Amino acid sequence: MVKYPSGSSAAFRKSIDKEKNQPKTTQNKNISFSDRGMTLEQMINESNKYYRINEIAVVHKKPTPIQIVKVDYPKRSRAVIKEAYFRQESTTDYNGVYQGYYLDFEAKETKNKTNFPLKNFHEHQIIHLEQCLKQKGICFTIIGFTVLKRYFVTPANEIIKAWWTKNKSSVTLAEIEAWSIEIESGFQPTLPYLKAVDQFIANRN
Amino acid sequence: MVKYPSGSSAAFRKSIDKEKNQPKTTQNKNISFSDRGMTLEQMINESNKYYRINEIAVVHKKPTPIQIVKVDYPKRSRAVIKEAYFRQESTTDYNGVYQGYYLDFEAKETKNKTNFPLKNFHEHQIIHLEQCLKQKGICFTIIGFTVLKRYFVTPANEIIKAWWTKNKSSVTLAEIEAWSIEIESGFQPTLPYLKAVDQFIANRN
Repeated sequence: MVKYPSGSSAAFRKSIDKEKNQPKTTQNKNISFSDRGMTLEQMINESNKYYRINEIAVVHKKPTPIQIVKVDYPKRSRAVIKEAYFRQESTTDYNGVYQGYYLDFEAKETKNKTNFPLKNFHEHQIIHLEQCLKQKGICFTIIGFTVLKRYFVTPANEIIKAWWTKNKSSVTLAEIEAWSIEIESGFQPTLPYLKAVDQFIANRN
Repeated sequence: MVKYPSGSSAAFRKSIDKEKNQPKTTQNKNISFSDRGMTLEQMINESNKYYRINEIAVVHKKPTPIQIVKVDYPKRSRAVIKEAYFRQESTTDYNGVYQGYYLDFEAKETKNKTNFPLKNFHEHQIIHLEQCLKQKGICFTIIGFTVLKRYFVTPANEIIKAWWTKNKSSVTLAEIEAWSIEIESGFQPTLPYLKAVDQFIANRN
């Protein structure tokens, strides 16, 4: 909230440092995770932070849309929302910019080993991806098979086609393998999904 | 939530029709407005809807980030958030895609007639715009002088420069006029800010 008239680069560095040193507790609070490791969402959030800090890309997860009905403003302490409801989302969870390209994607994980149920994607997400494709965005999904520890970056058009196919309730692992670029999870970033994006850009040009 | 296996284009049209016919009450609930007309936020939301329905661009306002602490799940009715707090935003309010270009902007209005106070922009917004500019996004602000009914689309770099300038607490209307493309409010869309974006793109190429 405060405007620091301390000159661009120093304050910018300070802010980046702040982000680097931030404890992870606030983020983790909202995410259910087991001690086996990070959820796909956590992996992507960590990767986005890495990409952001290293000025490789600017991608954020969108907040969950909430309809606020009642807020209390207690004296000498911050506002408390006392009644609110979850609203229907109208987009995917992630978007951002990478070397001038618009990125838009949805991430989902499954415990299945041989197929991915299409009901994991909601109609509004599919329609949003279609709209962004028409605007020449780079649109994809990240599907994680958590038990297999395998992660796939799949061009949105394949998922859209499958989703609208009559009586098709899931895609097989083999289909996903055929359509996607597989990404191995690593250390920095945790899930280097931009490697797949680089391929999509190379194929486009 | 339901997967409609009814074929792509029909269901897509249906969904677009749904958006067209949606009553405006749900949106308006969250926005304070006087009978004198729409707020800048409402104007931009209406314009984004127009651009989306007509497949001109896909731009959304990001939801306010909320930290949820307590949720009730009453039987036979939807989940109620009983305790939650506003979180610090880390981006601007709007982003999206237009003809392959990544758009990112913040909108602010003032009742002033001769200047715009820079404290209306927060540090995290300025830094986010800087980060997006580095990734070659098209970044700008929309500043509304509500009393004058004048609306300016200003390239982000001008606002960023002013914001970091020592002892500069506001920009004058004359400065904004010099830096910006002025947009007249109209009917469809309410605020045709993409006209300014077209100019930015033309200047870039």
